[in-house]
Amino acid sequence: MNISETAEFLKALDHVLILTHVRPDGDTVGSAAALCQALRDLGREAYLLHNPEITATYEPYATPYWAPEGFTPAHVVAVDVAAINLLPECARIYADRVDLCIDHHPSNSGYALRICLDASAAAAGEIVYAIIRELTPVTAAIALPLYVAISTDCGCFQYSNTSARTHRIAAELMELVDVSAVNKALFRTKSRVRLAMESRMAADMEFYDNGRVVVMQIPLALRQEYNATEADIEELSSLAALVEGTDCGITLRELKPGTVKISVRSGPRVDACAACSMLGGGGHRAAAGANVYGTMAEAKDAILQAVAHVTEA
Amino acid sequence: MNISETAEFLKALDHVLILTHVRPDGDTVGSAAALCQALRDLGREAYLLHNPEITATYEPYATPYWAPEGFTPAHVVAVDVAAINLLPECARIYADRVDLCIDHHPSNSGYALRICLDASAAAAGEIVYAIIRELTPVTAAIALPLYVAISTDCGCFQYSNTSARTHRIAAELMELVDVSAVNKALFRTKSRVRLAMESRMAADMEFYDNGRVVVMQIPLALRQEYNATEADIEELSSLAALVEGTDCGITLRELKPGTVKISVRSGPRVDACAACSMLGGGGHRAAAGANVYGTMAEAKDAILQAVAHVTEA
Repeated sequence: MNISETAEFLKALDHVLILTHVRPDGDTVGSAAALCQALRDLGREAYLLHNPEITATYEPYATPYWAPEGFTPAHVVAVDVAAINLLPECARIYADRVDLCIDHHPSNSGYALRICLDASAAAAGEIVYAIIRELTPVTAAIALPLYVAISTDCGCFQYSNTSARTHRIAAELMELVDVSAVNKALFRTKSRVRLAMESRMAADMEFYDNGRVVVMQIPLALRQEYNATEADIEELSSLAALVEGTDCGITLRELKPGTVKISVRSGPRVDACAACSMLGGGGHRAAAGANVYGTMAEAKDAILQAVAHVTEA
Repeated sequence: MNISETAEFLKALDHVLILTHVRPDGDTVGSAAALCQALRDLGREAYLLHNPEITATYEPYATPYWAPEGFTPAHVVAVDVAAINLLPECARIYADRVDLCIDHHPSNSGYALRICLDASAAAAGEIVYAIIRELTPVTAAIALPLYVAISTDCGCFQYSNTSARTHRIAAELMELVDVSAVNKALFRTKSRVRLAMESRMAADMEFYDNGRVVVMQIPLALRQEYNATEADIEELSSLAALVEGTDCGITLRELKPGTVKISVRSGPRVDACAACSMLGGGGHRAAAGANVYGTMAEAKDAILQAVAHVTEA
């Protein structure tokens, strides 16, 4: 469905539950919160399904919208959720009755009954912004989570997914709400623990493919040594993408013994999504991920082989 | 002079020499290059005075415009230069004949014969963009250095000086030129030396004022230990501004024995410009600097006292 069709469809809904994805980021939380507020401004009952993995970073944007216990939705909307297995456990009961998915992942599996997908959008928030403009006036309460959604998914306008449209929407939102505190908190604040962990990751980084591929690791032991919170670790995978001379930054994070989350950030030479898809994951061409089951060493071998494979192709 | 008056004034000039400031950053170099190209597009002879401190980061934007030896200007324009003592030594012979200064520093000393100043602009590049729009079509050759000017001075749209206007200009420029390589090079690349130096600075940081003020140091010895280039050190002062729980990040860099460059990045509680002005420096409220003569320890005491003084006020 296009923007207008999606807006028309949403207008007809009430008692709406909005779903976000596992390890929720700024885009899924901010987009869902903005959409929820817009539906409420239209007089509808709307909630976000509580996401048990929400971090302190994004909790403030979601808290006003969590569904009360016992809420029975008439309609279900998923935002920025590319596949069923990216729904939190508690959302799986809605897996076969998602009425609408709003997404920007080219790898979207098409699980929802209807989809509004624009893979050229830097964030699902860009699509949600366009939809809300056809529904109700964009207020400060809508603009703030939308700015969080858009700015986080484009690395505050640094990533290659940033377009002229991204900047124009940011300009519109900034005229409605002061985002300087958000920018400071999201993009210009690092905890002491995070600075220390980054130092260790940089000191221990390894290079492959004639120095063009860099691997950084976050073993459980490192996290425990610093008593790091989830917020300390959030987006640590962006560090590997910074190393001069490389165009493929791989981060391996041990979620628990035997489970490793792989994140890949890449330049044009390497299709991160293709590499991660070989391991059952997905994402975007320049930023993708996968969970693999095995040791850190096994996960490293697997993703290096996958990257080599898609690079040769 | 306002934008239109400045454009009219520039139209009447020929044989123009454009001056940039010491330790040239993206804004002074990018703004000067864009203005130079615009004047050339108008059929004028225009050059940048060679800046001996230009780094590899910004050299590509300036190289096409360096004045040949023996060029005798009929008119002199300074861009982003707030005071005479911020001109490189080789530019001092023009100090009393700067026909026009285009600047966004509220602390501008008024040394030029005419000034076009807009302290609300995130970068001098925003003002230069508005002026060029009244002179000649904005081409890709103008858009690229202007994007460099604007994006670097607002920390790629992260700093509090970023406005809706900043984003709108970025959108216009991005429609003329692909900036993804620039964003990658300027904001998402760190040399291995830089990563190592950041680790050391973070490991050795000191806290004052109940943890709200953080001090980081770059002694000459650290630079020599890593054989660091100027490009490795560029903008290292932004690191101190990231430390969670602080709202005043001070970086002390030993330029040579007995000379220390102080950089201050601050939140609303501390006026960085006022603190640095007490030591003979200047800048903006949230980002300012000063050079002091003495040891690192003396420089630290001096700036901590200055910061405490302006914080009490």
